[in-house]
Parts: sequence; C-alpha cells; structure tokens
Amino acid sequence: MLQDLETPVLVLDRARVERNCARMRERLAAAGVALRPHVKTAKSIEVVNIACGGKPAPITASTLKEAEWFFERGFTDILYAVGIVPGKLARAAALMRRGCTLSVILDGVQAARALADFTAREGVALPALIEIDSDGNRAGVKPEAPELLEIGAILGPGLRGVMTHAGNSYTSRSEADLRMWAKREREGVVRAAQRLRAAGHACPVVSVGSTPTALFGESFEGVNEVRAGVYMFFDLVMVGIGVARVDELALSVLATVIGHQPEKGWILTDAGWTAMSRDRGTAKHPVDQGFGLVADLEGRPIGDLIVVETNQEHGIIARRGGGPADLGDFPVGRQLRIFPNHACATGAQHTSYNVVNGGTSVEARWERFNGW
Amino acid sequence: MLQDLETPVLVLDRARVERNCARMRERLAAAGVALRPHVKTAKSIEVVNIACGGKPAPITASTLKEAEWFFERGFTDILYAVGIVPGKLARAAALMRRGCTLSVILDGVQAARALADFTAREGVALPALIEIDSDGNRAGVKPEAPELLEIGAILGPGLRGVMTHAGNSYTSRSEADLRMWAKREREGVVRAAQRLRAAGHACPVVSVGSTPTALFGESFEGVNEVRAGVYMFFDLVMVGIGVARVDELALSVLATVIGHQPEKGWILTDAGWTAMSRDRGTAKHPVDQGFGLVADLEGRPIGDLIVVETNQEHGIIARRGGGPADLGDFPVGRQLRIFPNHACATGAQHTSYNVVNGGTSVEARWERFNGW
Repeated sequence: MLQDLETPVLVLDRARVERNCARMRERLAAAGVALRPHVKTAKSIEVVNIACGGKPAPITASTLKEAEWFFERGFTDILYAVGIVPGKLARAAALMRRGCTLSVILDGVQAARALADFTAREGVALPALIEIDSDGNRAGVKPEAPELLEIGAILGPGLRGVMTHAGNSYTSRSEADLRMWAKREREGVVRAAQRLRAAGHACPVVSVGSTPTALFGESFEGVNEVRAGVYMFFDLVMVGIGVARVDELALSVLATVIGHQPEKGWILTDAGWTAMSRDRGTAKHPVDQGFGLVADLEGRPIGDLIVVETNQEHGIIARRGGGPADLGDFPVGRQLRIFPNHACATGAQHTSYNVVNGGTSVEARWERFNGW
Repeated sequence: MLQDLETPVLVLDRARVERNCARMRERLAAAGVALRPHVKTAKSIEVVNIACGGKPAPITASTLKEAEWFFERGFTDILYAVGIVPGKLARAAALMRRGCTLSVILDGVQAARALADFTAREGVALPALIEIDSDGNRAGVKPEAPELLEIGAILGPGLRGVMTHAGNSYTSRSEADLRMWAKREREGVVRAAQRLRAAGHACPVVSVGSTPTALFGESFEGVNEVRAGVYMFFDLVMVGIGVARVDELALSVLATVIGHQPEKGWILTDAGWTAMSRDRGTAKHPVDQGFGLVADLEGRPIGDLIVVETNQEHGIIARRGGGPADLGDFPVGRQLRIFPNHACATGAQHTSYNVVNGGTSVEARWERFNGW
C-alpha cells in the first residue's frame, strides 16, 4: 500500500502508462509511420517494454549509458540522439562491435570529419543521421544550408538519414500551434532529405520527434520514423499545452506532511527539489502549477493546491495564487501525491517507481537509472 | 587529467574546499561558537572530513540516509534537520539503538505529541529541537507564539533545544542585509530559548544556521551552535549575494562542446539539466548567470559566457544578455568547466567528484550519494 511507503518516492500508475502508450502506438500505426520510443523519460525496462508493445524494438536514447543498458536487455537498434563528439566514439563503437546497431547524430562539418576519420582509422562505421534545425530551438543544420550537402559528402555511405526535434512545440498554446510546429518539423526534415537525395545520397531515414507533434501532426508524408518519450507518463507541461489531461498523468511523487505555517496557510512536506527537481516548466503557462499539482492518495487533485516553493528536502504547498490552504485537512503525517511539471526531470531524481494500478495498492517496484 | 574524462562529470577543487572550510572554522572558532557542518551539499566522507578538521564531529543531515551513511563512518552526533514525521520515527530510533545520538526537529503540537507517544511506547527517547521561525521563510514556530511553550511542555525532558535557519538570508543584496538577517536569526532563536528557560526547560542547545549568516553575523551571543553546508563549495548564488568570489568556487561541471548554432552564436554542450540541475537561483540577481558560468579547463571564466538554456542532455552557451559567442574558439570536442548556480542541486545530479588541486590533473575520485 502507498500508506506503508516512506516518502518521498515516485508512484507510477501502470494503467495510465498502458493507455498513454496505446494512444501513441495506435495513432502512429494509423498514420503508417514507425514509432521509435525515446527511453530518456522512463529509463525503465518495464515501461519501455510497454511502449514497444511487449518486445524489444527500435528505441531512441539520450546517453550512451541508456544505449548500453537497453542493449544488454535485448534492444539492438538504438539511435543515440545527442550530437556525437570525438571523445565518445570509442564507447559508441564498442556497442557496434558487440552487435548493436547504434546510430549517431551530428550537425556540423567538424563532427562529420571526426566521425569519418574514426571510421577510416578503426574500421567501425557508425551509421549517422544529420540533425536538422526545423524550428530554431536548439541544434541542427538548416534544411537549406550549404553545410548540409558538405556534411553529406563527408559522411558518404555512412549517411543513414536525417532527423529533427521540434523543441519549440513545447511553447504551443493551442491546437493550431501544435499542428503548425508539426508541419514545420515535417517540412524541414523532408526538405533536407530531398536535397541530400538530389545530391545522390540514399538517405533512407527521415525521423521527426516530440510528443506534441507526434500526437497532433496532421501528416507524416515523407517521414518514416517518429521519436517521443514523455507521452508514456505525460506531465503538467503537456497538460498546459493541451496535449494531455490531468487524469492521464501516470507519474507522481508521494510526499508526507511534516508541518504547517499557520499564519500563511502553508503546508510543509518532505518532497523538496531532491524529489521534484527544480523544473518550473509551467512558469510561463496560463496556469502556473508551481513545482507541482497536489492530489490525494488516490491521485485526485485537491482544489487549487500546488507546491509553491521547494528547498532541498522541503516542499511548501499553498493555494494557486498564494491563498492559505485549509490546514485542518492536512495533519502531520498525511500523505499526498504531487504531479510534476516535467516527468523527465522529476523521474531523474529517483531510482525506482512504486507501481499502482489506479488505486493505492503497490503491485511492483520497477528500477530506473540515471547518469551517463 | 580532466582531458581524459568522458563528460559530463563533476570537478571538485580540493584546495578551494580546504580554504573554504578553514575560513568557516576559523571564523566560528574566533566567535567561540561550535560548527556543526551540514552534509547535505557534499554527501561525501572526504569533503565532510575536511569540514570537520580530519575526524568525526557533530554534523547536520537533511535525510535519514545521510544520518545512517555518516553514522556508519564514525559520526555519532547527528542532527536530522527536517521536521520529523511519525512514519520516520522507527527508522530514526533504529539509529539511536545502534549508538548514534540522533536529534530531530519539529515545529508543531501534532508532531510533538507523535514523538512523545513514540517515546512512551518504544522506550527510545530521540532528543528534539524546536524549529523556530526567525524570518518568515519556511517552517518553524514564532519565538513569541503560545505554541512554543505548549510544545516544550509536551516534549518535557526530551527537549534538547531550539534551532532556526535564516533562509531569507539568500535574498540579501548587501553586507548590511546579510548582517540584518544574521541578527534576526540570532535574536529569534535566543528569544525562544529565553521563553522556554523561563518556563523551566533547560534548553541547552541554541542553534542557528545558513552559510550567509554564519559568515556575516556580527554576534553569536546566546548561540552555541552554527550549521552550514554550501560554504564547503560555494556557488554562483553565494557569489551573487556577496558571500563568495568566483575564484573560491570549488565545484564545477566538466562539459564538452558537441555543436554550434552559427546564426545565433550558440555553443552546444553535453551538460544539460541532468548535469547542471534546473536550478535558476541567480534568475533574480543583478547578474543573472543563467544555468551556470562558463570557464576554461583551468577554471578561469571566459568573458561573459553563460549557459542560457538546458535541455535534458544539452546545454546552450551564449553571451550574457544573449549576444553571440566567438564560435571559432570552441571547436567540437573542446572541454569547458561550468560553475553552477546552486552547488547542492548540481551535486545531487551526480554520484562522484573528480578531484583536482588547482590544475587539470585528477588526483582522486570521491564518491557521493543521493536518495533517502
């Protein structure tokens, strides 16, 4: 039972994970495009197995540790989706030598040359995708940039395709925004593939990815792979941009009331930033959720209570907007569940999930990992 | 050598830790008040040994795991400085039965009754300090509150003393502010002790604590213990409020350049929020350091470069205020060191320190731990 757990700990609702994963799988299957789940949110074999439909399938990783960890558990087609640097090539190549197909990404001439030199010297060819900048958010080569063909030429037969990530889709405030970012994401990466193909490259993989664009894109024409991760759990950021509902949130933090500040109407808990993370992803949303939305032990939100501040091992709960909570309902020792802004960041503060199935009975404990 | 490390990893400058710890020890020794270092920042036996002058001494902990971990390494006088709840009493009592003097804190009648009931039932008396609210920042009983004496009466002989934490000292913008918060902290807790003593309680311990007030308080009269932790490393928040200089920062994150965004003059690195944390503690400071201040491999800041954004495994470096960096100086593969806003939060993202002594030669690897 959740009541027996020492807090703070993660609670994961398996039924919601299964529904969220089914929603994504069904949508992309209907669109005729492959799903390559991103394991960076969950970092759990049980969750990724649910996302993959019960057996190893192609996945996306954000660290070489994720790639190694899932390879050792039967996953043999892995995209390492953070720009590869010379100092990580040997470790990546070691995975290839063990039988993993590990694709890497890069977005510049320097990195392409380093990879080509490594391939020539070591005789291990890591398939490479060129990262495309479809929205100006972070990394990538612009679809029309001259460098795109230069990188393609350096990679030669090592060029496996192109990929992009519509990070700006997280700034959406409407379905129209979500569809717009999805369109830009698709058009940018498809255009890059066209240019590379026109220059004589096969460019078999055209990959897009973000939970918002995967769920709201109207077309995947020209795309053959979608990467997404946070949809397995969803979080308050996804609620804030209209991608999920609160009753779809699979991840929460179990906390205990440790005290009160009667003058201010604050409830103090033992879920500080070590438990929640310092992520304030809803700070600029129309509904600011503070550091998290407060719910009862069954996961039902309690009025407009949010975590307004976190210190290392303290959370402060008050009403959204700062009004006092009714302290009589929250005696010392009462347990609460807190839905986080950002499931990836909150998950990363923990090493396991306490798994429930809609109620408060803990049916399993699933390990997760962190680090590099 | 730092050059041989795969990034991101923590770098800790031992010489700076030693200087920072000596500064605090010497100041408090001159003031005639005992130091009870807080282990929550470092969570490392080597660092805490330096802080304690080479041998086990009284310490402060933020979790029962910290208390257990340090008890197993010879520390027998530990203050667990987060409000105790009924569900953690059995674990705390187990430490007492093993020979540890584990003091707990509480700030309300409910928690005091729960502790008194536990003591009566289990026959293990955990010494308790009443947490005093000296600045309205977070938890605690106001020095003049009627509840103070009620709690004292419930605890009876179990009352070991009073403690407070001037969390608002972190909002200081001048030395005058720092001295003011230190004065309030001292006066609040001393007043609470006076009231308890007038009511017949011995109240032997009067404890204050925060790095800013410990270093800037002008008087410790009536106080016999100071708790502080982040001074061992310092961080950009401490620089921002005038408590430390950049050349005293002992903790940094080693990162590698993974790409560029030439149009914007951005440098991309592999130190995202998994390496830095999402802490934005300098956001409201006169000098906003983003997610961290960028330095070369020897730890010298590079112009006005800061980490302006972090994603899970990506950091984006630009000039403070958003101007472009000179990308030619930052080829893919170049390593950088990044000083964090908040040493506690950045440390908590890692499991070890790579120890240097002023240069780039790695002389040791010290383990650290997380969790509860």
